[in-house]
Parts: sequence; C-alpha cells; structure tokens
Amino acid sequence: MQDVTSTRTQVAVVGGGPAGLVVSHLLHTAGIESVVLDTRDVEEIATTHRAGILEQDSVRLLTETGVYAAGAERVLTDGDRHEGVFLRFGGESHRVDFEALVGASVWLYPQTEVFVDLHAARTRDGGDLRYGVSDTAVHDLGGRRPRVTYRDTGGAEHEVVADLVVGADGSRSASRDLVAAPERWSRTYPFAWFGILCEAPKSAPELVYTRSERGFALISQRTESVQRMYFQCDPDEDPDAWSDDRIWSELQARVAGSDGFALQEGPVLERTVLPFRSFVQAPMRSGPLLLAGDAAHTVPPTGAKGLNLALADARLLAEHVELALTKGDLDVLDGYTARALERVWRVQHFSYWMTAMLHLGADSTDFDERRQRAELAGLVSSEAGSTYLAEAYTGWPTR
Amino acid sequence: MQDVTSTRTQVAVVGGGPAGLVVSHLLHTAGIESVVLDTRDVEEIATTHRAGILEQDSVRLLTETGVYAAGAERVLTDGDRHEGVFLRFGGESHRVDFEALVGASVWLYPQTEVFVDLHAARTRDGGDLRYGVSDTAVHDLGGRRPRVTYRDTGGAEHEVVADLVVGADGSRSASRDLVAAPERWSRTYPFAWFGILCEAPKSAPELVYTRSERGFALISQRTESVQRMYFQCDPDEDPDAWSDDRIWSELQARVAGSDGFALQEGPVLERTVLPFRSFVQAPMRSGPLLLAGDAAHTVPPTGAKGLNLALADARLLAEHVELALTKGDLDVLDGYTARALERVWRVQHFSYWMTAMLHLGADSTDFDERRQRAELAGLVSSEAGSTYLAEAYTGWPTR
Repeated sequence: MQDVTSTRTQVAVVGGGPAGLVVSHLLHTAGIESVVLDTRDVEEIATTHRAGILEQDSVRLLTETGVYAAGAERVLTDGDRHEGVFLRFGGESHRVDFEALVGASVWLYPQTEVFVDLHAARTRDGGDLRYGVSDTAVHDLGGRRPRVTYRDTGGAEHEVVADLVVGADGSRSASRDLVAAPERWSRTYPFAWFGILCEAPKSAPELVYTRSERGFALISQRTESVQRMYFQCDPDEDPDAWSDDRIWSELQARVAGSDGFALQEGPVLERTVLPFRSFVQAPMRSGPLLLAGDAAHTVPPTGAKGLNLALADARLLAEHVELALTKGDLDVLDGYTARALERVWRVQHFSYWMTAMLHLGADSTDFDERRQRAELAGLVSSEAGSTYLAEAYTGWPTR
Repeated sequence: MQDVTSTRTQVAVVGGGPAGLVVSHLLHTAGIESVVLDTRDVEEIATTHRAGILEQDSVRLLTETGVYAAGAERVLTDGDRHEGVFLRFGGESHRVDFEALVGASVWLYPQTEVFVDLHAARTRDGGDLRYGVSDTAVHDLGGRRPRVTYRDTGGAEHEVVADLVVGADGSRSASRDLVAAPERWSRTYPFAWFGILCEAPKSAPELVYTRSERGFALISQRTESVQRMYFQCDPDEDPDAWSDDRIWSELQARVAGSDGFALQEGPVLERTVLPFRSFVQAPMRSGPLLLAGDAAHTVPPTGAKGLNLALADARLLAEHVELALTKGDLDVLDGYTARALERVWRVQHFSYWMTAMLHLGADSTDFDERRQRAELAGLVSSEAGSTYLAEAYTGWPTR
C-alpha cells in the first residue's frame, strides 16, 4: 500500500453534485465530518443544465440550514417565486393557483445555481471536496471500515477510510451496484424531451405545461433574457438536425391556440435530447452504504421532481446517519429505505401521471386524446383536483 | 301500405330500457307524447343484472320527477344509501367518506329495479309502451316526418310516425348507425370482469374496490342475502369452467390481507363474463334523431357510471326536445351533443382512471404495480385527492 495517501473521516460521499453536497452540508451542521469525491470537475457540474423548479421544502432546506449567510439567501433574491403554473390544452391556458389552493409556492432556480450555492457553502465551512478524481472504487463494505480509493488529478493514489459511505453518484451510479441483492423497477417511455436554452424574453410569467395534438411542450424560464423550453420528441432524435427555425416552428405549433398565445423567439444557445425513464432501486441502504438521489431512482422530467427528491433523500439520510453515529449503532439506518421509498414512489406516480396526462403515447388512440383533454378539463374545473395536483407539485411536507 | 297500423306521436323512442323509459317519462311530465318500442320483453330486461350504484342526481331524478307516488319512493326504502366506498390495496381497506368529503352519497339500487320502477310509472301514467316487437326500422330521417316500423308479437305490421326519434337502444344500438357521418372513439382493454350473484350475507357494508397482485376485485351487495361480486379475468374466460369453489378461492385470494378480511361465501346463483370497452360516438343528434345512453357511449364498469350517464343524457335530451317542440324549431337540438359530450368524456376519463388504478394491465410491469399502490396510498392520504374521487363517484352536478 505504498504511496497511498490515507484520509480518515466519518462519511465518504461518492458524488459531489447537489445530492452529495447537501448530505455533506447537513452532516457538517450536525458536527459530522465527511469527504466528498467526484470524477467531474466543478466547472462541468456548474454548467450542465438541468431542472429548475424547487419545491417549497427544498427552498427551506437551502435557506434554513445555513447554506447562505443570513440575509444573503441567493435563492430568494436570484430565484423567481412561482405561485402557480399553467396547464394548456385545447389551445387555452388554465392557471393552477398554488398559493390559493395550498398556500405554497415553488421557486424557479436552476439546479446549476443550487450546486454553486452548496459548493460555496461547503467551501466556506472548510468542507473537504475533491473534484476531478478518477478510478473511484469503494472497498470493504462488509468490514468495519469501508474505504474509497481514487487517483487525484496528478495520478497519485488516495484512500478515504470512513464509517459510512454515501452513494450520491447520479443516474449512472456505480455505487448502486454495490447494494447486496437489490430489487429494481423501471419503466421506459416511447418519447424523450427536446430541450433548448434560448436567448429571448419570457413568453409567460410561469411555467406552461402544454398538451397539443402534436405532443407535449413545456415553456419554462431561466432569466429575463434566457429561456428554457422543451418539447416531446422521439428518443432517437438528433438535436443537430434541428435548425433554430425548425425548433421555433415546432414549439409555436404546439402552443398555438385560440387565445393568440405565441412564444418570444430568439437564438437557440443549446439543444439537447433528454432521456426519459422511471427507475427505482431498493434497498437504499446496504451495510454502511447509503444511496441518495438519482443513484437510487430516476424520474421523468415532467413535474420537475428529480432534484427535489434528491434533496428530500439527503435530509432523511443525514438524520439517520447522525442518529447512527451518535448512538454508534448502524441498525438505526434500517429505517432509511422505508421512509425514503414512501416519497420516492409517490413522486414516481406523480411524474408518471403528469407525463401520461400531457404526452402523446406511442399507442395513443383518438380515444386517449379526447380522454386526456377531458381529464385536464375536469382537473382544472375541480378545486379538489387542482389542489391534489398543487400538493404534489409544490411538494408534500417532508415530515 | 295495406295492413299497416299507423300511430301518430311526438317522439318515437327506440329502446325501452331505463334510458328510453326515463326519456319517455320526462317528456310526459312536460306534456309531450311518446311511444316506446323494444324488441325485448319486459321480463327479459327486468332480470338482466347490471350495475347497481346510483349517483345522487340519479336518485334525485327518480324521486323528484314523479316516478314514484309521493311517500312511496322505492329507491329510498329498498335501496341502500352508501356514504362511502372502500379502496383496498396492500391488504388493507381505506374508506373514502363521501358524506364527509363532498356531502353526497350514492345509492345501491340495481338497474333492474330502476327499470321496474320506471316501467311502473309509465304504465301508471298511460304511457304507450310496446315490448317484444320485431323488425324495428327507422325511416325518413331526412324528411319532415320520421317513421319507425315494426312487427308486433303477432307478426302484424305497425308504424309510428313522429316528429323526433330517440335512439336508446343500448350498446348494440342500430340507431347509432343512422347518424350521418359519425365520429367514433374507442378503447379496448386486455381484461374483462367475471361477475357473480351469490346467496350469502354481506361481506362489507359498502363497496370494496380491491387492487391485488392477482388483479382487481369488487365486493358489492344486492340484498341482505344476495350479493354481487366481480373479479378481473381474461376476456375469453369461460364462466362454466369456474366451480363455486374455484370462484371463492380466487375472490378470497384477491381480498386477503393483514386485517383478516374474508368474504362470506355461499352458492353462486349466476356467473357471467362482462365485456369491457370504452366507446363514444358523436354527434349524438342527427336531424330528428337523438341518441341517449349506451347507444352513444359505453364505459367500462369500474366506477358504475353506465346507467348514471344514460340518465344524465336523458335529462338533457328531454330538456332539448321540450324546447324544440315548444318552439317548433329543431335547431334547438344542436346544443344537445356538446352539452352531453362534456359529461360523457369526463365520465370516460373517470371510468378509465378507476380501471387503470385498480387493474393489472396486460403489459403491467413490477414498476407499474408499485406505482399503482403509491397512487392509491397517495389518494387516500390526501383529502384533496379523495375529494376529487368522491366528486366523480357521487356524480358531478347535472347543471
């Protein structure tokens, strides 16, 4: 074992995206040391555009656990509070008023900014963050002292010896494969999302989830001058086959309606085809290993639950770890999977429902299209139905 | 045209089931004459077991339009008021309390009894009801005086000359084919219901909609000593291949759970495989022809909407006919399709939703099963979600 630099910590966190950083941050606030490892570098994570909607409890997690200095809550100043959302179908928009229905809001605040804020907080608090590492491998999960080995950017070998390991390494997680005898559930969809970032003024003050005969479209925002939009496409779609004109023409066609609603157009800065899948693995704990976020589950992007679910996992995971390390009893961790999965499956259903209600399926018949429209019409005309949707969209309370 | 007995009336109603009889009854209360024709005889209709749940507005239609003599509202004395329903999954029952959630109930009162009551009312009021006819045919829909011809039980030829014709001839409607250039929408399901009538005490005070890993089951009631139950089966299932023992064993397995719930068994009096289909045809009016009930649409039995939807159609149809004949202006009938279809599609969605939430699909994955359970758990734990279901189950107001 010569030339291996060894670090002893309480929790080794594999994955330095928002999930891993929140875990590390929450453990820190509980006086628990951790080391965060990620094969990507900070710049790469900070520029990979993802979801942009935070549930109210996600915002609370950021503002109430010391991520920001008091009075400098960037999510509140730079983010946009959305008190509702539009469901658009039959060529008309119908607002679901979250504040009026459930007294809650969501915040438009990109995942990249959440990462930047968490990274700044961990850095400010002296967190041990190691980005750009390679050859990460977890060892000795069956023993008393699990280890994570890796090479630093210079190629030198390191090991982190810990009491517990957190796998927060995203949807292509290697950690999840270390869980003994896992169960896995998944669902594929016959479509994907074509996502663009464009330079244009806002087309709507809040998100517009659109069902049209041409398929789903989502009009979202980012800043005053940069917007995010999506439309349902074939999973094999080639983003480069789409000129700006073709993209705008498709988006305009999907949102067109009797009310004259039209999108503000501008140069397309980025175009990507987003994968679309539902996935769950359980248990989320195996000996001293705990999984959080995409490492344990993937939701389709409809309803913007991915990041929020990761943050909810992290909160629950940190609680269990704190209790286990304080008591010196790993059995405490047993409760994590069941509590986390309850929300995971609820969110899986919500994401599936929003998807099914708004997308054209591969085998959609004319009957299904009429039925979808009737569902949407029934939902927006029922206070109970709209409330049921608003509860889910703004996020069920985390306890 | 020798030997043809001709009758002049205002409305010829083709189909003497509940839909046709309610139309005839409501027209009578508005002073409009009708003749009702049906190829079946009264006994056959009165003994064909169908759905048994009436929405509150269906009960109101029966009790408030003079079907019964005042003080002799049989639906209220012989029917059972159900203030809720049980959703059973994960081996436990969860009650959805309609009264508490939406201040409404439903009534357990078989369709056969609704027929008997309506038939008695029309007979009492001197209605012209002609059952057991044959060779019914509608003529001259394009002219000023449509006619319906038929043969009576003795083989003699008759014609009914009317201003309007109502097609209320059920799911195998011939009338629907007379609509000019209809649009049709349908959905088939990869399963059916195995329905039994059995001699046994009640197993539960209200309906129990059950989702189990073996598929859907519905525990319903009829009287103190006769019960109605159903379970999801293959559409090609042969009812005769099922002994009483096999039926009870399957039903018990579907409702089994940690709470020890078990069915009260007894001799199976009747066993049938019920077809399962969603179907809509529009327009529901074509010249002087109007369609009502199953003639225009079929819903799967989950949620018990078929009869209720037929009664809602009839109410709307009678209103339009009254106005058209009073004004002498058939253009008034134009509004019927749009108003009726709004409810039709809403009910189609509800029936589909109840079906999808509780049945195993042919291509159901383990993911879908877990998601279904999460949907049900989320629904019963959300007052808004339960209210949304209760609103639909008890029936949205008819105006």
